[in-house]
Amino acid sequence: MSGVFITFEGPDGAGKTTQLQRLSRHLQQLGTEHICTREPGGTPTAERIRTLIFDPEVQLVPDAELLLFAAARAQHVQECIAPALEQGRWVLCDRFTLSTLVYQGYGRGLSHERIYQLSAMATGGLQPHLQLVVDVDALHGQQRIHQRHGDVNNRFDTLSCEFHQRVVEGFRAAASSEANCFVVDGRNSEDEVHHSIINALQQRGLL
Amino acid sequence: MSGVFITFEGPDGAGKTTQLQRLSRHLQQLGTEHICTREPGGTPTAERIRTLIFDPEVQLVPDAELLLFAAARAQHVQECIAPALEQGRWVLCDRFTLSTLVYQGYGRGLSHERIYQLSAMATGGLQPHLQLVVDVDALHGQQRIHQRHGDVNNRFDTLSCEFHQRVVEGFRAAASSEANCFVVDGRNSEDEVHHSIINALQQRGLL
Ligand SMILES: Nc1ncnc2c1ncn2[C@@H]1O[C@H](COP(=O)(O)OP(=O)(O)OP(=O)(O)O)[C@@H](O)[C@H]1O
Ligand SMILES: Nc1ncnc2c1ncn2[C@@H]1O[C@H](COP(=O)(O)OP(=O)(O)OP(=O)(O)O)[C@@H](O)[C@H]1O
Ligand SMILES: [Mg+2]
Ligand SMILES: [Mg+2]
Repeated sequence: MSGVFITFEGPDGAGKTTQLQRLSRHLQQLGTEHICTREPGGTPTAERIRTLIFDPEVQLVPDAELLLFAAARAQHVQECIAPALEQGRWVLCDRFTLSTLVYQGYGRGLSHERIYQLSAMATGGLQPHLQLVVDVDALHGQQRIHQRHGDVNNRFDTLSCEFHQRVVEGFRAAASSEANCFVVDGRNSEDEVHHSIINALQQRGLL
Repeated sequence: MSGVFITFEGPDGAGKTTQLQRLSRHLQQLGTEHICTREPGGTPTAERIRTLIFDPEVQLVPDAELLLFAAARAQHVQECIAPALEQGRWVLCDRFTLSTLVYQGYGRGLSHERIYQLSAMATGGLQPHLQLVVDVDALHGQQRIHQRHGDVNNRFDTLSCEFHQRVVEGFRAAASSEANCFVVDGRNSEDEVHHSIINALQQRGLL
């Protein structure tokens, strides 16, 4: 595989999608072939699984939720991410395995061991070259989200403040325990966050 | 848990559903409280996952398919099967873990080790008291199915003859390697198969 695989991770409203789009524009200016994708989702089947996971009408025990994320990821990796990397393209992915570890592990309290096992099954061992973790406190992230769409739109939006706090702290813990993570402070301006990301890529020889 | 958990396994068209209904009628006559359910499915969410798995329009790599079966099973066990057994009811289930081992393992060629791991995650270790394996040859089973609905209705119906042969032989192999299996010859008449099943339950002290 010769493409570069970059994931954007962090709590709700941290600025992941914003920064992914900024990096995409930057790569476009450089003429670097790349695709932008997201999890859960990224292929028609995986997007159908996403719809199911986020449907507030759907009853889903935590174990089943975790397995659905893994199913969507296996499809996404094999049908989309791995082929793009093999063709030498960059892949920018909005959330990936770190979010699963944090939401299902730190958030829902599922066994980290089990999450690692399922992530390994789903990815076949494929790991990002860099996991960009946009750090932001829970309140800050929630405020940005409410400003953006003003109401509840999925299962996760209705979770408690304590859950979001565990997610914020989970990302901090995971960023220091997992490989290839770089934390940026999402409370800075969009431009500042973007420049930190470009710097991090340059320092790692990826750009 | 005090209920009895019986699963009906075997190739397509073997007579699983027919025999499940026969046993259900028998239990009804005895006044034994029970539920009839099926996999994949058995709860609203798991039935939605079933629809996805069997939709011929859906692209699904074997790993993702396996993970979807596991997700549906986790939901089914936790929301439906385990509570019924805890209330002392019998649970008659049309297909369960043996079908996954056979279709995804012997049929699709996925690692048996991985299938065991996922089944254990999905069931939390819950195992049937008896796995009734209705044995039938591939041709026989396929003929019965074509008589029944006369056309292709899901992803599995379009699979090759060799696949169905592997499934038939897989059930025979699995029935001798897995715990609590009882094989009945599905080429016998419905009545004969039913009586073999009742006998098997009586001999195990379940009836
Ligand atoms: N650095 C920033 N400073 C101020 N506002 C920002 C910044 N980054 C993003 N925003 C705004 O915050 C909101 C959330 O940003 P964005 O959608 O990129 O977050 P996200 O991490 O992708 O959220 P989600 O988890 O919901 O997908 C948007 O309205 C966006 O314009
Ligand atoms: N012992 C039997 N002898 C002859 N025909 C049978 C017997 N058992 C079932 N059948 C008929 O064979 C067809 C398939 O039976 P059934 O639907 O019970 O199989 P199944 O194993 O549940 O199939 P599927 O895997 O498609 O769910 C039905 O038309 C049924 O009436
Ligand atoms: Mg986003
Ligand atoms: Mg049937």
